[in-house]
Amino acid sequence: MNPSKIYRIDLEPIGRRAEIAADETLLDAARAAGVELVTLCGGEGWCYGCVVQVLTGNLNPPTAAEREALSDQELAAGFRLACQARPLSDIKLNIPPESLAAQQRLQVEGQETTVRPDPLVVPVDLNIAEPTLDDPRSDTTRVAHALIAAGHAPPVFPHAILTGLAGRLRTQHWTARLGLRGGEVVAVLPAATPLLGLAVDIGTTKLAAYLVELETGRTVAKTGAMNPQIAYGEDVVSRISYTLEHTDGRTTLQARLVDTLNHLVAALCEEAGASRGQVCEAVVVGNTVMHHLFAGLPVAQLGRAPYVPAVSEPLDLRARDVGLELAPGAYVHLPPNIAGYVGADHVAMALATEVLETDRTLVALDIGTNTEVSVTRGGRIWSCSCASGPAFEGAHIRDGMRAAPGAIERVQIIDGRVHLKTIGNQPPVGICGSGILDAVSEMLRSGIIDRRGALQAEMPGVSMGDGLLLFTLATPAVTAHERPIVVTRKDINEIQLAKAAIRTGVEILLAEAGVSHDEIEAFIVAGAFGAYIDVVSAIRTGMFPNLPMERFQQVGNAAGAGARQMLVSAERRAAAAAGARRVQYVELTVHPQFTQRYMKALYF
Amino acid sequence: MNPSKIYRIDLEPIGRRAEIAADETLLDAARAAGVELVTLCGGEGWCYGCVVQVLTGNLNPPTAAEREALSDQELAAGFRLACQARPLSDIKLNIPPESLAAQQRLQVEGQETTVRPDPLVVPVDLNIAEPTLDDPRSDTTRVAHALIAAGHAPPVFPHAILTGLAGRLRTQHWTARLGLRGGEVVAVLPAATPLLGLAVDIGTTKLAAYLVELETGRTVAKTGAMNPQIAYGEDVVSRISYTLEHTDGRTTLQARLVDTLNHLVAALCEEAGASRGQVCEAVVVGNTVMHHLFAGLPVAQLGRAPYVPAVSEPLDLRARDVGLELAPGAYVHLPPNIAGYVGADHVAMALATEVLETDRTLVALDIGTNTEVSVTRGGRIWSCSCASGPAFEGAHIRDGMRAAPGAIERVQIIDGRVHLKTIGNQPPVGICGSGILDAVSEMLRSGIIDRRGALQAEMPGVSMGDGLLLFTLATPAVTAHERPIVVTRKDINEIQLAKAAIRTGVEILLAEAGVSHDEIEAFIVAGAFGAYIDVVSAIRTGMFPNLPMERFQQVGNAAGAGARQMLVSAERRAAAAAGARRVQYVELTVHPQFTQRYMKALYF
Repeated sequence: MNPSKIYRIDLEPIGRRAEIAADETLLDAARAAGVELVTLCGGEGWCYGCVVQVLTGNLNPPTAAEREALSDQELAAGFRLACQARPLSDIKLNIPPESLAAQQRLQVEGQETTVRPDPLVVPVDLNIAEPTLDDPRSDTTRVAHALIAAGHAPPVFPHAILTGLAGRLRTQHWTARLGLRGGEVVAVLPAATPLLGLAVDIGTTKLAAYLVELETGRTVAKTGAMNPQIAYGEDVVSRISYTLEHTDGRTTLQARLVDTLNHLVAALCEEAGASRGQVCEAVVVGNTVMHHLFAGLPVAQLGRAPYVPAVSEPLDLRARDVGLELAPGAYVHLPPNIAGYVGADHVAMALATEVLETDRTLVALDIGTNTEVSVTRGGRIWSCSCASGPAFEGAHIRDGMRAAPGAIERVQIIDGRVHLKTIGNQPPVGICGSGILDAVSEMLRSGIIDRRGALQAEMPGVSMGDGLLLFTLATPAVTAHERPIVVTRKDINEIQLAKAAIRTGVEILLAEAGVSHDEIEAFIVAGAFGAYIDVVSAIRTGMFPNLPMERFQQVGNAAGAGARQMLVSAERRAAAAAGARRVQYVELTVHPQFTQRYMKALYF
Repeated sequence: MNPSKIYRIDLEPIGRRAEIAADETLLDAARAAGVELVTLCGGEGWCYGCVVQVLTGNLNPPTAAEREALSDQELAAGFRLACQARPLSDIKLNIPPESLAAQQRLQVEGQETTVRPDPLVVPVDLNIAEPTLDDPRSDTTRVAHALIAAGHAPPVFPHAILTGLAGRLRTQHWTARLGLRGGEVVAVLPAATPLLGLAVDIGTTKLAAYLVELETGRTVAKTGAMNPQIAYGEDVVSRISYTLEHTDGRTTLQARLVDTLNHLVAALCEEAGASRGQVCEAVVVGNTVMHHLFAGLPVAQLGRAPYVPAVSEPLDLRARDVGLELAPGAYVHLPPNIAGYVGADHVAMALATEVLETDRTLVALDIGTNTEVSVTRGGRIWSCSCASGPAFEGAHIRDGMRAAPGAIERVQIIDGRVHLKTIGNQPPVGICGSGILDAVSEMLRSGIIDRRGALQAEMPGVSMGDGLLLFTLATPAVTAHERPIVVTRKDINEIQLAKAAIRTGVEILLAEAGVSHDEIEAFIVAGAFGAYIDVVSAIRTGMFPNLPMERFQQVGNAAGAGARQMLVSAERRAAAAAGARRVQYVELTVHPQFTQRYMKALYF
């Protein structure tokens, strides 16, 4: 070992990177990146707080402390104690949420659903005649007769219900609450148990999960987590690549995701004092690739033109067929996908924001690595997807990071002085999406960059680094890792590419719909990033058109809200399916005006 | 080791027993029992022909030859070479079919199905438009549009089809033959591939499986095997006990059965030059316990009064939900059960023999450990189950065995001399069911036993053994194991109990239906045993009523024939369901006339 050799440590899912010497530990790497891990013992190896998982690269053999702390299976799966592990190569690490001292910001907020409950699964309480030698009707016949006596049709029993029915009826002394879904029995529970539903928004980066009482529509618990697939690729394209390069890739990505969802369900149920057997129905939304990877569908054809979804129609899958552990007969409803890059999450958002049913003239968009845009006019809907890239997720930005504690989320430059606000008001670690948008906007306003995005060497704060101009947002004196946080010319360029892609999509849809800026009645911005951005910065950089402030609506996780609407209401589910069928999809890459408009939109 | 210690070796599934000394091998035990195993090497341990599986008991540690021949997993699962293994205790052995030098007689014959094909799964050949950037409809939408253009309704795609559809369409260059089942896609195959179906009769002892061309109804391959569950209990009661005494018992029995069925499907497909992906539908029949164990349903409640089936209605299960490997979306249809001991196999038999639809006056029965009887009159049907016991399977009979090579299947006593016929014309090994029935009938005719079944000490062939009278059928000079084959008083008693149970069931149903013997137009005897018995012996012993010979019909495996009818015809399936609903089940154990009639029927 050459102690002076320097290795690069990638810290996922935070999206930060550090460089450490061979005689330093992974805990040192986390500290260098400003990421705080749980360490009650101060790195002596006995508190087991700093467990991390090595995704790629080589480390020193496990120490005695680690062999004590971790099982053989855990060691085999790459789990190590960060305070004990030293690099022998560049390393890519996954940090489990429980090892992070401060939790990441997760996107579970959003409009509370206000629809009238009209759930697909309804409760029926039954008292069933006990069998005797004179009345040896089968269990299913007894239940069917009790249901018919209660005014229902003879039911269908799915296999997973049949395997447990005999035991249930006898331990429950021939009383039961059935969860009935259009004549099919999906749950057999003790009398009067509330029926619950699960709504999930699978983002490429984050997961949001909601537990809802089906009868009232009330959200009884919500939680979030990082999408564990991030360890296999930051964006949808790299995840598709992973499935192409690994024989079991699709299975691995599906299993990791569902495993995390099962943990979220357990946490939600614990919070609500319920059991997963009460969860009789689920609605899962996500972009088309997340939709396919969740459902175990092939994604290869989504990775190359013409980007065709395997499935675009609404799907009702058995939860157990995809490995989700809910009530034995529970279904998962997946709303329709519109196209390869306009998925069920956009449908859910469009449903929650009334885009699917309005006669008004609206623009609605959900900003992410791909930004989906819809425009409505006169009851018609046009949609497209813009390749806005991961800059707003903090990726491809020199000091970029996700919206975690210590991320700079607001920037003001007043009289040449930089004012910062970080998430959790912690010492700055890096810049997240809203911060970099603010920074570029303020640099533009202050004349630190020009219309083309070029840094002006003579302006205060601008200096040379590695032979290129850069602007210092935070000096080593104030940052968590005691290194400066800067904005480079390349960072500015990434923002230009992103905002130009979004603006081009908006403008082409407006042109297709024949809508002028003045006619836009509301400009709806959904999603995690969209909830935190400063609309003024978005207008100043040219990402959004220059509309009166009051026309902008930042609605948070509208996809999650839409999912909850579809969970509790058959009518909302039908509205989503009908609305999605009416959408006119516009493929930007072959649109005649695309290149010209995009080139123009690159300027500030 | 005490070499003179004697151990008892049970040889399953043959149903033979041998006693050997501690220094003898399991191969010696098989030879002593007259069961020939494959031994090319003469017991030196290098041909690996005599592989057996130890179910219970202890043996010497594996020898070098066995460690060479068998993998660690095989050794762990109890597999040994019979020529190398010596007992340290009493042993229960399972002999895999491939280790038997002569194959057992399996029951796959039966009436060929003659119904007009009207299958539930129909083929649709499609040419599908290939996607482009101007036409990026999803794969499912393209298939749906092609189906609609061909005059079909929009289809449902089950999850297992969706996971492979994208790949299939592309490797098949956008042509496909779909297997369509009432609007649901169950298979996606290359154009013009024939669609096949699987019919299975799960007997407690034997399995019969048929591969059928759905479009023509033609049986393209058939095969049989022992029911592997026999290693866990000879009859349904002991299998129910096994599930109660072992936590994973139900899972084990289900998995062993389905594993064997999957092997049978592979063999059938190989014989027919087909792939299992072509098998788009299955029909499985069996008694209620076999039905439940196949479907993974609880059986505890079938083991105690009031003997209630978990399910009596017809079931359509996904083949993959029970582990059966057919086309991805294939269903398994299970016809209805009538009661705990009148199962779907009796319904299938009743369908094939027209019992379910006739206006004639019929008796139909399927003889086994439980014998199911139906009586029809004026379009009505009465059914019951008789606890006839395992005597006709060769069990509980001193020299009894199943219908395997060397089993005595015909007995004649002419002028005091015994004439025998064995299966395969091999030296006698034991007596199977038809043989013992013949023997008792002939002993009765010759006055060797009296009306009560008592052996007459003065008759030739009757001697004392172990302090009891017995009759010698075959002397050591002619038998395979050089020991006599005899009929004891206890054997005769077992036959009395069995025939009395059957006759009582028949008589009580006739009384319920108000049918006199003269009015019986046909007396239908189905099943493996029923196909081989001598009707005269059955009448002489009093098992069957004394009707003119021409009214008896021995129809072989009518349950298998009924299963094939339901496989190829939706109309036949509906007829079975409707017929089963009309059956009036008669519970013999609580019938007021049962005890009196049974006592009377015990006499010859």
